Amino acid sequence: VVTGIGDDAAVLRIPSGHDVLVTTDFTIENVHFRREWQRPRVVGWRCLARGLSDIAAMGGEPQAAFLSLALASDVSQRWVDEFLKGLLELAKKHKVPLAGGDTAQSASGIQADIVVVGSVPTGKAVLRSGAKPGESIYVTGELGGSAMGLARLREGLPLGAELSRHFRPEPRLEVGRWLRQRGIPSGMIDLSDGLSTDLEHICEESHVGAELEMDAIPRARAGRGKGRYVGMDYALHGGDDYELLFTSRRPVPSKVAGVAVTRIGRITASAGMRLIDADGKVNRLEAHGWEHFRNLGSL
Amino acid sequence: VVTGIGDDAAVLRIPSGHDVLVTTDFTIENVHFRREWQRPRVVGWRCLARGLSDIAAMGGEPQAAFLSLALASDVSQRWVDEFLKGLLELAKKHKVPLAGGDTAQSASGIQADIVVVGSVPTGKAVLRSGAKPGESIYVTGELGGSAMGLARLREGLPLGAELSRHFRPEPRLEVGRWLRQRGIPSGMIDLSDGLSTDLEHICEESHVGAELEMDAIPRARAGRGKGRYVGMDYALHGGDDYELLFTSRRPVPSKVAGVAVTRIGRITASAGMRLIDADGKVNRLEAHGWEHFRNLGSL
Repeated sequence: VVTGIGDDAAVLRIPSGHDVLVTTDFTIENVHFRREWQRPRVVGWRCLARGLSDIAAMGGEPQAAFLSLALASDVSQRWVDEFLKGLLELAKKHKVPLAGGDTAQSASGIQADIVVVGSVPTGKAVLRSGAKPGESIYVTGELGGSAMGLARLREGLPLGAELSRHFRPEPRLEVGRWLRQRGIPSGMIDLSDGLSTDLEHICEESHVGAELEMDAIPRARAGRGKGRYVGMDYALHGGDDYELLFTSRRPVPSKVAGVAVTRIGRITASAGMRLIDADGKVNRLEAHGWEHFRNLGSL
Repeated sequence: VVTGIGDDAAVLRIPSGHDVLVTTDFTIENVHFRREWQRPRVVGWRCLARGLSDIAAMGGEPQAAFLSLALASDVSQRWVDEFLKGLLELAKKHKVPLAGGDTAQSASGIQADIVVVGSVPTGKAVLRSGAKPGESIYVTGELGGSAMGLARLREGLPLGAELSRHFRPEPRLEVGRWLRQRGIPSGMIDLSDGLSTDLEHICEESHVGAELEMDAIPRARAGRGKGRYVGMDYALHGGDDYELLFTSRRPVPSKVAGVAVTRIGRITASAGMRLIDADGKVNRLEAHGWEHFRNLGSL
């Protein structure tokens, strides 16, 4: 960042021989969060995590973040301070400067739009469109924790330490970079809409199909002690996990940058998605992530 | 744009030897526009014009735009189509691809956030901080038309052709580039908040003061035939003109890229802003642009 906040535009110097990555993500009150359910620090953290996760999914390096924030007059200064604290905590962790943005009065509620600009060596961005039949499908971390947490909030139940952790997702920047540097992923996406929906994005962009092995899908745990696995529905369709989903024909270690990587299925030439259960029975897998768990009605 | 809409992030290839410019601007219903006052096409045009104008004020070249759009369920598809039509009309005019963005459900009303990414030769971005005592102050085009138009809308009066034109401002990209290529502007800003407020931004960032000659300020015309000049208050404090304000010690032509350029005053070593009237009387000039004309209450 050469010139940040305080001019008409920010000026960034991207390393030569690099492409520029740009991603924007809205965080809207009563759509993506509720003021009475989530602490402002968590909302701020998640707001930036969404953008960083997109850069991770390209195998890129974040260079700067920009926050546009619209606030209704009933939003307290304390809420804003805590929101920024959470956002800047994550920014600092990944050494991403907040280089600008916009503030505005909102007619009602809170609307935040986060922009993250990143870089990746020229031509090396990992797209969704590179998956090929016969390749394996991998996922980082554990799935379904965030959706399960949301379900508990909706029922007025406490989250517990395990699920709280899922509300502060770690964008997988180091994993994405490590994989890209070794040319491992042919296609990659981050899990923001839910496994079924995001896998469908890869299938559509790559013109392929996919087969998942139900038993292999790593599920988050919830509850006391070692806890119980979250329901398969949460792992398959719950959004906001911000793990990476990628395809590869190359050997992949079971842990990258301290994060578990699990093989969960394979890419097929025939279109459509299938789910193989423990008995080997093949069922059609429908994409219904975001709409199912996060739309205005259900939140 | 190497990869646009449809991946986790857009991939842009910026010409080598160039810095990257990034600007974000909110356009919010009942704050920046009213659905019953402005046609959606005009709202879309203005939404992008705000971003392009920021790039113009850096002397830059726009490379791509990104639109995040949140819509309440009462917004008609026709409104969205017309909004996009207006936005894309301006994008096409300046050959700026819409390379991505985000869409979301809004809890109420319409919120749009426009991001424009541009480029400028390394180290050549024109900042607000370069103005020096003794330099002249220049402005492009005519001022106050947009604020006058808003005042008429507020009173339920028709706009007429002249004022309607001011609601579709032309971002001064060609002018900004022409000036920057010749090393003319020492400091530059676009007039979005109003002359008095934006001049104060230059003064603060450059640690200087300014003196304006009231008679020299080019005012827009309103009404039938050749019309009448808008009131001096609109020209001094009205926002949304999207003209360029710059400082220079070099000779400046009276027309650049077909747009009038007018000398309106000079930069002083002593802080503060002063306005010299026709009789040579010096008055203190206070910045009260945006708050005065565009805040939630007055709109």
